[in-house]
Amino acid sequence: MPIITFKPGGKSIEVPEGTLLLDAAKKAGVAVEAPCGGNGVCGKCLARIESGEVDFSDGLLPRGLADEGFVLACKTKVLGGDVAVHVLSAPEKEQGKFSEVSEDIHLTDKALLPGPGDLSPLAKKTALSVPAPEMGDGLSDYDRFLRTFSAATGLREAETPLWVLQKLPLVLRENDGEVYALYAQYGGRARIVDVFTEDIAMLGAAVDIGTTTVAVQLVELRSGAILASRTDYNGQISCGLDVISRINYAKKPARLLELKDLVLQTINGLIKEIAREQDLDASRIYNASIAGNTTMVQLLLGIPPEHLRLSPYTPGVYDVPLLRAGEIGLCVNPGTLVYIAPSVGSYMGGDITSGLLCTKLLSDEEGVSMFLDLGTNGELVIGNAEFMMGCACSAGPAFEGGGIENGMRASAGAVERVDIDPGTGIAEVFVIGGGAPAGICGSGIISLIAELFSKGFLDARGKLNRSGKCGRIDTTEKNARYIVVPHGEGADGKQVVITEADIDNFIRAKGAIFSACSTMLKQIGMDFESLSRVYIAGGFGRYLDIGNARTLGLLPGLEDDKFLFLGNASVVGAYSTLLSEKHREKEKEIARRITYIDLSTEPDYMNEYTAALFLPHTDASLFLKKT
Amino acid sequence: MPIITFKPGGKSIEVPEGTLLLDAAKKAGVAVEAPCGGNGVCGKCLARIESGEVDFSDGLLPRGLADEGFVLACKTKVLGGDVAVHVLSAPEKEQGKFSEVSEDIHLTDKALLPGPGDLSPLAKKTALSVPAPEMGDGLSDYDRFLRTFSAATGLREAETPLWVLQKLPLVLRENDGEVYALYAQYGGRARIVDVFTEDIAMLGAAVDIGTTTVAVQLVELRSGAILASRTDYNGQISCGLDVISRINYAKKPARLLELKDLVLQTINGLIKEIAREQDLDASRIYNASIAGNTTMVQLLLGIPPEHLRLSPYTPGVYDVPLLRAGEIGLCVNPGTLVYIAPSVGSYMGGDITSGLLCTKLLSDEEGVSMFLDLGTNGELVIGNAEFMMGCACSAGPAFEGGGIENGMRASAGAVERVDIDPGTGIAEVFVIGGGAPAGICGSGIISLIAELFSKGFLDARGKLNRSGKCGRIDTTEKNARYIVVPHGEGADGKQVVITEADIDNFIRAKGAIFSACSTMLKQIGMDFESLSRVYIAGGFGRYLDIGNARTLGLLPGLEDDKFLFLGNASVVGAYSTLLSEKHREKEKEIARRITYIDLSTEPDYMNEYTAALFLPHTDASLFLKKT
Repeated sequence: MPIITFKPGGKSIEVPEGTLLLDAAKKAGVAVEAPCGGNGVCGKCLARIESGEVDFSDGLLPRGLADEGFVLACKTKVLGGDVAVHVLSAPEKEQGKFSEVSEDIHLTDKALLPGPGDLSPLAKKTALSVPAPEMGDGLSDYDRFLRTFSAATGLREAETPLWVLQKLPLVLRENDGEVYALYAQYGGRARIVDVFTEDIAMLGAAVDIGTTTVAVQLVELRSGAILASRTDYNGQISCGLDVISRINYAKKPARLLELKDLVLQTINGLIKEIAREQDLDASRIYNASIAGNTTMVQLLLGIPPEHLRLSPYTPGVYDVPLLRAGEIGLCVNPGTLVYIAPSVGSYMGGDITSGLLCTKLLSDEEGVSMFLDLGTNGELVIGNAEFMMGCACSAGPAFEGGGIENGMRASAGAVERVDIDPGTGIAEVFVIGGGAPAGICGSGIISLIAELFSKGFLDARGKLNRSGKCGRIDTTEKNARYIVVPHGEGADGKQVVITEADIDNFIRAKGAIFSACSTMLKQIGMDFESLSRVYIAGGFGRYLDIGNARTLGLLPGLEDDKFLFLGNASVVGAYSTLLSEKHREKEKEIARRITYIDLSTEPDYMNEYTAALFLPHTDASLFLKKT
Repeated sequence: MPIITFKPGGKSIEVPEGTLLLDAAKKAGVAVEAPCGGNGVCGKCLARIESGEVDFSDGLLPRGLADEGFVLACKTKVLGGDVAVHVLSAPEKEQGKFSEVSEDIHLTDKALLPGPGDLSPLAKKTALSVPAPEMGDGLSDYDRFLRTFSAATGLREAETPLWVLQKLPLVLRENDGEVYALYAQYGGRARIVDVFTEDIAMLGAAVDIGTTTVAVQLVELRSGAILASRTDYNGQISCGLDVISRINYAKKPARLLELKDLVLQTINGLIKEIAREQDLDASRIYNASIAGNTTMVQLLLGIPPEHLRLSPYTPGVYDVPLLRAGEIGLCVNPGTLVYIAPSVGSYMGGDITSGLLCTKLLSDEEGVSMFLDLGTNGELVIGNAEFMMGCACSAGPAFEGGGIENGMRASAGAVERVDIDPGTGIAEVFVIGGGAPAGICGSGIISLIAELFSKGFLDARGKLNRSGKCGRIDTTEKNARYIVVPHGEGADGKQVVITEADIDNFIRAKGAIFSACSTMLKQIGMDFESLSRVYIAGGFGRYLDIGNARTLGLLPGLEDDKFLFLGNASVVGAYSTLLSEKHREKEKEIARRITYIDLSTEPDYMNEYTAALFLPHTDASLFLKKT
């Protein structure tokens, strides 16, 4: 009987000839989604045959995908020999890698994502039959190409980059003039992206550039399938933890270039890593959509950001015109036209307009909702179909594990939840991907501080209990610490701790966020209870325990079902704008509609902030759970 | 009394305070043109003050020019101290450098050149007052710039390259928003070229890329003044003397890049040399117009040219879309939009459409004229306002001094005319710029061979007289030679000779040209005598002696006044399209109107060619002078 090996997990199983791949996966315990019930309709069970023979004659996929070995597991029968198959939608966690991004999609209201009918990436593909040259026709290769292209698309004017002119003579003769042209359209004009003879898969990269974390998704555009997703720390971290320190760093022109290079290295590193893993050429990626805060976008583009820091806080650009990837330095195809999410204010960027695509704020005609992004900058937007107001505050990188002694991103090895024994004070830790703990991610920090506080090992001012009652509290140094994982038990035998300085960072972060929320609500004459929904976005981890967040004074006391966690909403928005013109337009409308409030000019804000620098707050009644 | 030093010649003279610069120049023997009689109108006496104080308050120049120290010599009075002045229109020959190009302008019918009313380079300049940012305006620097730009120009859509976005924040704040935008317009759209605070001079580069010779002119656009012009051999010569050998060489991709680099090195070398001499930054050149034959244009752009050589002889591109200089690799400002003269056929390129701008063919409603370009490729166009037909033949580089033992370009040191004593056989030589002869240029070769032939030292088959009657003929080697300048008398003590192989090259060149002319005329049922005018273009030298050309069978026997010498008409055409939209449109119309005939498919051509491989021809009656 043939043996089927499922990658990247490596699980394998022996099945009779003729078994469906989907059934083999279930039998092997490999999670493959099939929401359409195995009818070959939803495309969620997309997989790629790496070796062996299968029968996919009963299934349908776009030609380019099929040519590259893609199949739908629900419509693929195993033939005689052994088969190795790469399952694309299986949560990467199974293989010891935590993919927050692909899971984010599942956390979002799917109706907000582009559907099959919305597919309209910037780069359109058209098949052309360019006639052969004839003696005396007086037409160059480019003339014949343009005539055929115009007839096919109705676009008379085209902007063609030099490298397309350079390859045209050879490409046209490679396959008797049967070519594909990739182009973007605006107004009545075409911008040629590339010309080639193979009907390659339509790939795109969705990128979220956070101050602390960068996320990249590689997407097959026709199916909308996320082939892979990766995150990494933004390489700029070495030049400053928050946007203000990056802006200061960028004051010298050479350092601005350095910051541009560093973030490009991070993004390109992730793209290349994914491409290598997927055995794809990164230059075959012809679409890209980027979301990032206003400063991150200026730095990516090498635009001096210093005026963002000085009154009246004006960036070089809010709504970036379409640029070619080659101009920016992205390692996708150099002709790719890059869409960048529009920013609204100096501290309300494209990450927020992008994240708002994952909410119903723009269309909600009844209730008023709040969107809260818990990143290194905290941003929030309150509104509905009638109005949208936003503001920002500097929280610092604590929610992403930054600026914390043993902090780390929400990836394999991160402690994401902690239970503390009230008697011994010893922590039981839950680690992403299992295995030995290497550090603590955002959700782990919240869980840990809430446990310490509720079990009486931490006071309202953020000081660890020095009574000796808890044997895990080490007060020998001035910066007292709680030992989460003792020496010898962490990854590589290291210990994992949280210090009072870490706790202080967290309290200031949550204080900044909460006081921004309360100041903003006062501004518009509302209170927390009148909100119909609170959307929470951020890279802090998969789950934020609402009880803990209330305990610490990060989130107000509202009914549990009013909170909706979006995870990294910014990258999900980038995914949506990568696929769909409707979403790009919606995002531009969001950007136009938000009124940006500068908290630094609000006299209330500092009072609110000071009141919030306690656990949970000077007014603890705000944080009682509502039912 | 102040001492005035005129550069680049270095002549100086002491004059009383208050003397006009123009008068000082005359007194010093420095040639400064003043066709308007010193009334400050024609702009021909444009000069640049390098040091010292002058009074130009009585004269008028565009602000940008005046800011860079330009004056009109006829309206400039010398003040108290010494003055160093760079005279721009003085024939460069005075300084030992021969500037064929700037003189070409004088050889042309000036009504065909752009006049002051035609000034419309691709890059337009507009002064903008961009308002300062205001708190809460919600506008980025780019938003405010675009609004101001759109209001000033009426253009709503703009394409802006990344580097303009990068510099905008600093440029806008450098001078309180008072900036100049350079942009090109097509349809209702703008392509931003650059943004800066100073009202710099509007400079442009006109470039002619010949197979053998490259010519560059630096032009001040508002006055139309040619600030400098230079020629050099095309660096590709080392990879083949004619287009066919270059096309063969380019078959490997790395060699195509090599050829692209070589011609860019030649062009950029000339531009940098001019910029250094004029003390200008080459990145301040914001307009460029290029003319070259079809192969030269493909090679400049790195487009594989091989299909030009194979039936049906199709190039990658005839009419090149506007490209940015940075994309091509030209060392002018990278944002410059480069205009390239359209080609018509595989062997009828933009050098011909450009050259035809210097003729009246397009508008002549009565007579029929012939335009003849004597380059490495010979091209000719016959026609008038009703029709235009063109063809090409391969002449080889003899007319430009290429492939000739002691051949050289028409530059300082070249023998341009020869008189041979019928008794002694000794040559008296006339050298460009005076001084010792270094070689022979095209016009010198024609003069020399005609002298040898008419004095009986050369027979009709191109063999030197071996009777010993002429002491300067050396027949010791198989390839017999005539010693033009004996050992010790040439530059660096070298001798200058012409060999029978050289003479053979010339005979084949003139045979190819003449037979192309006669074949073409037969095609349309005409003969030489029915032509009302013959325009002759080419880089062979300043003057072509008609008598000599007839003697050798290069030009037919027509009345002398039917011949009009244009010199390097291609670069003059590039100069015109650099300055004027009307000329760019006229050139496109010429390209559309020419019907290209492939001589290789004409059965008559080879017969005509064989008949023309004699001095002057098998039918000598064709070459009698008409009166």
